[in-house]
Amino acid sequence: MTRGRIGEFIERFRSLKQRVLLKWFGEAFPKIDDPNIRIQQWFPQLGILAHRNTKVFVMHGGLQSMFEAVNFGVPMVGVPIFGDQNKNVKVLVSKGMGIELSKKNFTAESLMWAINEVESNPRYIEAVLKQSAILKDVPMRHLDEAIYWIEYVIRHGKVLQPASVHMPFYQVYLLDVLSFIITAIVILYLILIRAVRALRIVLRKQKKKVE
Amino acid sequence: MTRGRIGEFIERFRSLKQRVLLKWFGEAFPKIDDPNIRIQQWFPQLGILAHRNTKVFVMHGGLQSMFEAVNFGVPMVGVPIFGDQNKNVKVLVSKGMGIELSKKNFTAESLMWAINEVESNPRYIEAVLKQSAILKDVPMRHLDEAIYWIEYVIRHGKVLQPASVHMPFYQVYLLDVLSFIITAIVILYLILIRAVRALRIVLRKQKKKVE
Repeated sequence: MTRGRIGEFIERFRSLKQRVLLKWFGEAFPKIDDPNIRIQQWFPQLGILAHRNTKVFVMHGGLQSMFEAVNFGVPMVGVPIFGDQNKNVKVLVSKGMGIELSKKNFTAESLMWAINEVESNPRYIEAVLKQSAILKDVPMRHLDEAIYWIEYVIRHGKVLQPASVHMPFYQVYLLDVLSFIITAIVILYLILIRAVRALRIVLRKQKKKVE
Repeated sequence: MTRGRIGEFIERFRSLKQRVLLKWFGEAFPKIDDPNIRIQQWFPQLGILAHRNTKVFVMHGGLQSMFEAVNFGVPMVGVPIFGDQNKNVKVLVSKGMGIELSKKNFTAESLMWAINEVESNPRYIEAVLKQSAILKDVPMRHLDEAIYWIEYVIRHGKVLQPASVHMPFYQVYLLDVLSFIITAIVILYLILIRAVRALRIVLRKQKKKVE
């Protein structure tokens, strides 16, 4: 983002009644004398999401961040950059937990609109609280479950092993499948070569006949 | 089984020091005056397997029976008849919980040998008790788990739904895939017909030339 463009965003942030915490990658981040805007290279994200005054989370659609926001019931504005982020933001939009802003459409104006929409329209917070309740509704606490299955293996010995433990290395690395495929290709290639040669000879003979 | 062959089995059962409970399909089952042998069309299988004096379970490898035997720690002699029974008995043998007798090899003599082996060699009961411990080692009682997930759906509404709920009927029944495959086959067929026709015409012309 150019320095001019970030200035545009900062101007808009000033007009917001909410405080803005801006995570800024890169060394030199702009100096802003505004008690409502705070720019840092790193924030304690989990703690901020857990805070009851946190209203909107603008994020790039990382799965970890999404789970953290859902856990604490914070609606989102997702701006996917690459990879699985597109899919994650599609999911969050389909569940009604926020809004997607495409990278191409990411302007100070569109961001302001999205933040205001997500903050003022109660349907986003309602949806994220519903998903939060589903996420937290588990038959066992996660730590207890992890401990249970670790102790399960300790109790019973050779259980919950992947099938690869009992396979020779050439099966694990699919060398047997690979060698079959290579052999098949080589044989097909040889057959093809011979067929083409045979066809050529036949055609040459026919040509001579015709002449 | 012919009446002669079943007589052979009964003779052998008489020589056993254990009591024999024989489940007999079909109307007319042989009359036997032996307090150690009991023939019935139906037994309360679960109760018998639960009895501490039950030593060996001769069965056809049904999954349900196998789970019941493992649950109560009774080693087995498996005589698979068809279908998944072959696979089930292979599993029980691979876990050391019993012996497989093939249908072809199922004689009074082989059965006596198998029963005696499973009953006298402690490795079968040890193996089945080990598997029994694993089977019973679950993080939640099964009934509690079933109740939990039923109440989970009641709490959250439209959750744990199969994808087919949100699909049009032609996708559920794969009609779109089917119509694509049929169209592809029809097109290929038409191309093939035209190609063969074209080839015939070319060959006929060449033949004429040669003549």
